[in-house]
Amino acid sequence: MTGNVLSNRFVLVSFGESHGKCVGCVVDGCPAGLLLSEKDIQRELDRRRPGQSELTTSRKEIDQVEILSGVFESYTTGAPICMIVWNKDIDSSKYKHVKDEPRPGHADYTAAIRYGSFNDHLGGGRFSGRITTSYVMGGAIAKKILREVLKVEILAHTTEIGGIKAEGKSLDEVREAENNPVRCADQEAAKQMITRINEVQAEKDSLGGAIQCIALNVPAGLGDPVFNTLEGDLSKALYAIPAVKSVEFGSGVDAARMTGSQHNDPFALREGKVVTLSNYAGGILGGISNGMPITCRVTIKPTASIGKPQQTVDLRNMKETTIEVEGRHDPCIVPRAVPVVEAMLAMVILDHAISANLIPRVLERKT
Amino acid sequence: MTGNVLSNRFVLVSFGESHGKCVGCVVDGCPAGLLLSEKDIQRELDRRRPGQSELTTSRKEIDQVEILSGVFESYTTGAPICMIVWNKDIDSSKYKHVKDEPRPGHADYTAAIRYGSFNDHLGGGRFSGRITTSYVMGGAIAKKILREVLKVEILAHTTEIGGIKAEGKSLDEVREAENNPVRCADQEAAKQMITRINEVQAEKDSLGGAIQCIALNVPAGLGDPVFNTLEGDLSKALYAIPAVKSVEFGSGVDAARMTGSQHNDPFALREGKVVTLSNYAGGILGGISNGMPITCRVTIKPTASIGKPQQTVDLRNMKETTIEVEGRHDPCIVPRAVPVVEAMLAMVILDHAISANLIPRVLERKT
Amino acid sequence: MTGNVLSNRFVLVSFGESHGKCVGCVVDGCPAGLLLSEKDIQRELDRRRPGQSELTTSRKEIDQVEILSGVFESYTTGAPICMIVWNKDIDSSKYKHVKDEPRPGHADYTAAIRYGSFNDHLGGGRFSGRITTSYVMGGAIAKKILREVLKVEILAHTTEIGGIKAEGKSLDEVREAENNPVRCADQEAAKQMITRINEVQAEKDSLGGAIQCIALNVPAGLGDPVFNTLEGDLSKALYAIPAVKSVEFGSGVDAARMTGSQHNDPFALREGKVVTLSNYAGGILGGISNGMPITCRVTIKPTASIGKPQQTVDLRNMKETTIEVEGRHDPCIVPRAVPVVEAMLAMVILDHAISANLIPRVLERKT
Amino acid sequence: MTGNVLSNRFVLVSFGESHGKCVGCVVDGCPAGLLLSEKDIQRELDRRRPGQSELTTSRKEIDQVEILSGVFESYTTGAPICMIVWNKDIDSSKYKHVKDEPRPGHADYTAAIRYGSFNDHLGGGRFSGRITTSYVMGGAIAKKILREVLKVEILAHTTEIGGIKAEGKSLDEVREAENNPVRCADQEAAKQMITRINEVQAEKDSLGGAIQCIALNVPAGLGDPVFNTLEGDLSKALYAIPAVKSVEFGSGVDAARMTGSQHNDPFALREGKVVTLSNYAGGILGGISNGMPITCRVTIKPTASIGKPQQTVDLRNMKETTIEVEGRHDPCIVPRAVPVVEAMLAMVILDHAISANLIPRVLERKT
Repeated sequence: MTGNVLSNRFVLVSFGESHGKCVGCVVDGCPAGLLLSEKDIQRELDRRRPGQSELTTSRKEIDQVEILSGVFESYTTGAPICMIVWNKDIDSSKYKHVKDEPRPGHADYTAAIRYGSFNDHLGGGRFSGRITTSYVMGGAIAKKILREVLKVEILAHTTEIGGIKAEGKSLDEVREAENNPVRCADQEAAKQMITRINEVQAEKDSLGGAIQCIALNVPAGLGDPVFNTLEGDLSKALYAIPAVKSVEFGSGVDAARMTGSQHNDPFALREGKVVTLSNYAGGILGGISNGMPITCRVTIKPTASIGKPQQTVDLRNMKETTIEVEGRHDPCIVPRAVPVVEAMLAMVILDHAISANLIPRVLERKT
Repeated sequence: MTGNVLSNRFVLVSFGESHGKCVGCVVDGCPAGLLLSEKDIQRELDRRRPGQSELTTSRKEIDQVEILSGVFESYTTGAPICMIVWNKDIDSSKYKHVKDEPRPGHADYTAAIRYGSFNDHLGGGRFSGRITTSYVMGGAIAKKILREVLKVEILAHTTEIGGIKAEGKSLDEVREAENNPVRCADQEAAKQMITRINEVQAEKDSLGGAIQCIALNVPAGLGDPVFNTLEGDLSKALYAIPAVKSVEFGSGVDAARMTGSQHNDPFALREGKVVTLSNYAGGILGGISNGMPITCRVTIKPTASIGKPQQTVDLRNMKETTIEVEGRHDPCIVPRAVPVVEAMLAMVILDHAISANLIPRVLERKT
Repeated sequence: MTGNVLSNRFVLVSFGESHGKCVGCVVDGCPAGLLLSEKDIQRELDRRRPGQSELTTSRKEIDQVEILSGVFESYTTGAPICMIVWNKDIDSSKYKHVKDEPRPGHADYTAAIRYGSFNDHLGGGRFSGRITTSYVMGGAIAKKILREVLKVEILAHTTEIGGIKAEGKSLDEVREAENNPVRCADQEAAKQMITRINEVQAEKDSLGGAIQCIALNVPAGLGDPVFNTLEGDLSKALYAIPAVKSVEFGSGVDAARMTGSQHNDPFALREGKVVTLSNYAGGILGGISNGMPITCRVTIKPTASIGKPQQTVDLRNMKETTIEVEGRHDPCIVPRAVPVVEAMLAMVILDHAISANLIPRVLERKT
Repeated sequence: MTGNVLSNRFVLVSFGESHGKCVGCVVDGCPAGLLLSEKDIQRELDRRRPGQSELTTSRKEIDQVEILSGVFESYTTGAPICMIVWNKDIDSSKYKHVKDEPRPGHADYTAAIRYGSFNDHLGGGRFSGRITTSYVMGGAIAKKILREVLKVEILAHTTEIGGIKAEGKSLDEVREAENNPVRCADQEAAKQMITRINEVQAEKDSLGGAIQCIALNVPAGLGDPVFNTLEGDLSKALYAIPAVKSVEFGSGVDAARMTGSQHNDPFALREGKVVTLSNYAGGILGGISNGMPITCRVTIKPTASIGKPQQTVDLRNMKETTIEVEGRHDPCIVPRAVPVVEAMLAMVILDHAISANLIPRVLERKT
């Protein structure tokens, strides 16, 4: 399958460019009978769009969604759903040099190899974080279906920025993470993160961080080993988010330092249900969900576009040179990536739930 | 696509069970004209098979491959290649209780949910590490094609076991990692790792660790954003290896603590070629290879099967109970996972190279 | 894969409804560097749109295409190409009864089973012939690439309508078929067909027919047996055209009456090239193109929507009843299906040419 | 996806060669809990194997199946099922010239283009009708599941051979078609067909024919428009059978001569169920099954391998020449293709039934 098509049963097709007419997507495989309005999509888009706080890019986009197909008399029809966000506030004046002088840490160079001189480089084109708008649109639908049919809840939050780590927090506190601009459940750490972001921004530099994502009430039994494991499909989807450098489940990298007796989650009975007493497995055993919360963590690298002088190569004249990247960029993309991480989880979990016969092709009509 | 089919152009289909007749695979999409004998496959299988040192399971398997199709007069024909390893040393006496009393950290419980009481649980069935034999067979072909057509070299080695970390080593030292039983390039650390493994084995416990994998000479331009990124497809394939808990590229989890000016790899010219001076990107930018070595790291959890008493649930009587897992198990699976990690990288990189028109459908005849 | 995604390497995603906002598509897998304007698409759309002659529906649609993504500075970028035709002349007044009283020969009944009461039935929704607009848009791009890179020419023409059969004609005459309203290369038969169509239209009835499609200069070697044969992929694509009842290659149904010595096409040399002296194979042997013209034939059933009284079932009251279908419909859809048939051939042949490494990922810049 | 993998949810992977070690397949996506023995497969293989009558090739193959994986304690486990038929009676002495002098009507020439000189040409290699053994194995499983879970019955029978057409017969007579060597429900026509086959065999020539296939009790609602229509997926699968030249549904090619009022099947109520009074639709409307019998027809070309002298090209010396094909071949392959046609229908219908949530992932245990 080609590169802009995700999954097999709940399919997202992404299209559009950062400085083109629009960013959009087609969702194919959505069951018929979901009550769906543009508001359902907009709510999630508003969490991702720029300008939510002073920490984000100054690009002014309201990112208003328009549904072009697949919804009839307020319900999904089972036909493909095309959704568009028209680009409004485009300023391409800062991208003249990008083609000849690739920005370090950016896709400028690899795009030139892959697509030749035809690549639309303005604003990063298809490699812009703006493309994740299309993921959020698809994810909004997946989240709604998961919530209504299976009561699945998906929660992501910032756990680390620039070396400042959040303390482990309760689910209720995680649900409150949305209330601060860095989306961190540890309100104290959040303040330090904000200060740190302001510092590096002043230095024309940027910061990375980490996001944890939790999926609650995921039914046991999702996943198709040996290759279509839940971890495998989730990690593939998560790596579609620009800047992700690692994907961990449960114990993640810490598993390297543990013994089996520490790491194995003991089975127990709680209210007649099989549970595990710890969750180093991250809710997945043998590639299949075990009914415990699915927990994963992604690391986001620092924003590649920074004002500081950097060494690069002038490809036209084939000589080394120095650039200072202009344009409007977030000093730390982590907070805005939070809803994107949720979207990816939702779409992959829904894809597996469909495969497991858990989602009717036609939902019951809600009124 | 169903769960036992990997990739799209160089396709691996895995079949077989740990205690069934055989473990096997079908490779579809192999170009015609590759000189291929069972020796090419056997070399890689010998690196994975049990009994290479006293650190591994006492199951005695010579894991001899038989090619059933797709090779004619010593060359691949372009037809699907079926390969089989017949199981020899099967001892199923220790698996009576597994169905009713799922082993913590194992897939026993999730397999029972997913496949009901029909799951072949003997020796772990499809969830056994033994299934990776099929990956290694496919990987052996992929490695040979990559080496012969593109001069790609793929090298994995143990970088951590039970908290003992290897020092960073040169490529030549990494190539020598194969010489010690833990496959660690840092010979000093290797000794400590062996000691540590022996200790936990005596305690009927087990250890996890980490493996780094490097792919050299991968052409720039491989990867199909936004979803079929090189990281995405590699991580999906790597998560098909039982016990993997994280997949990182380049800087991986460390990216969370870095600034953009530290993390961005400066572009430079070396012998007229564009290179980067560091490689925090892990050889991939925007989901596309940039011509630098591809570096990734996987964390392997401690072997779930341990002799120590563990709490579990008796599913038949729905009450909590304690088990001590018997059977023949590696106290640390990391060293034997090294060739499996290489196999996954090889297959995915080849899949992308085919997509990039870099692999002829019919190779030139070598004699 | 879900139902609105065609092929694997040159992928068409179709969306939109007959009476919704638009009909559109996304093409993914188009090489970078194709000079592409809306005119290239419009030329093909104009061949399909209603109102070309008095024989077609009175719906007035100019079917003007808008390219939303994937083209930058006049060239394709390698990114997904979204194209839209906005619906203009919508009249939904005649579709009130369709949900309860399914039209014989139509998808009203099966759509109600498949999508429940949520199906958008207006103007046939996703089951309208109007949806083939999206095929023609994708086909226009495929035809242009095939023509420019491989000099492939694709020609369809009407060979039968309402029992009137065209005489076999030369390629030059086939190229002139476009000049009469029924797109028949036999100008004499064309006149009879027109008369016959007018007759049945007066009787509030409709006619079926047949279309032959020829693809010239298709390189030998396309096709991936045993399942992805050229015939298999072509026929699947052709059956996506509403009303197709048969797909034949070369001799087609006549093969049942032939002997091997009649049917086997003798190989011969012409100007140093291997050719066959006849072409009962239709240019395909063993599922793989042999370098001769690919010839196939589709049968189109008579338009299902007719004014004559017909028996159906009132699904709400579960009793038999009679309907007379209103709305604007072509008495014979064959002529307008001609460019659609060409589009399907072009897309599938291009898909296989990409798989055969014959289409560079980045085309040479034309100016 | 590569060429030897069929479908998406009930997947068949075919491997093996006519004169290699074996012909085999892997079925992935089979639900757990099907009582399955080699006898279930053998029954269908026995219908396809050579030597059932004097009308078939003299190759002596008992075609005994061996199940290598995926079945445990008599039930399918949900894991991939590998099945093998070992080749026994191989005589490759007649295939020396095939590489240089391609047989007219055969894949020798196109295989040489597609796979170069590496193609295994012995006995036709992958292009032999013998490969359909792998289809029949997969089909046997699909038929059993369809029968047990949905009560679907699939029946194919010969309707035409060498210009002799069978009269339309009742379902009961069709079920008796198996009783004569040509599998024709019209016992009178069957005798003539046998005589005609004997005649052409004496002339070292061969005959084509046609097969009708009927699927009863297929639930309404199967099919995923616009591209994954039931006709589209069925025809793709049917074209994987060597020698198929046409695939028709319902009225097929006759639709070209009908009016809408003749062709539209009137809806009616019978015992409270919606039915159609005729079935020109072939049980499919808008690409979706309507609950009526699915009827399709395939045309099989005359066997390409004939003893009569034929013109071909000596590819080594690039000059025209004459050949007389030796080897053991059926003078008419139609009767042995009957179970193969059934197999393809069964696999595709099951694939769609899985997609429609109609097949549980774990079947109820039967004892």
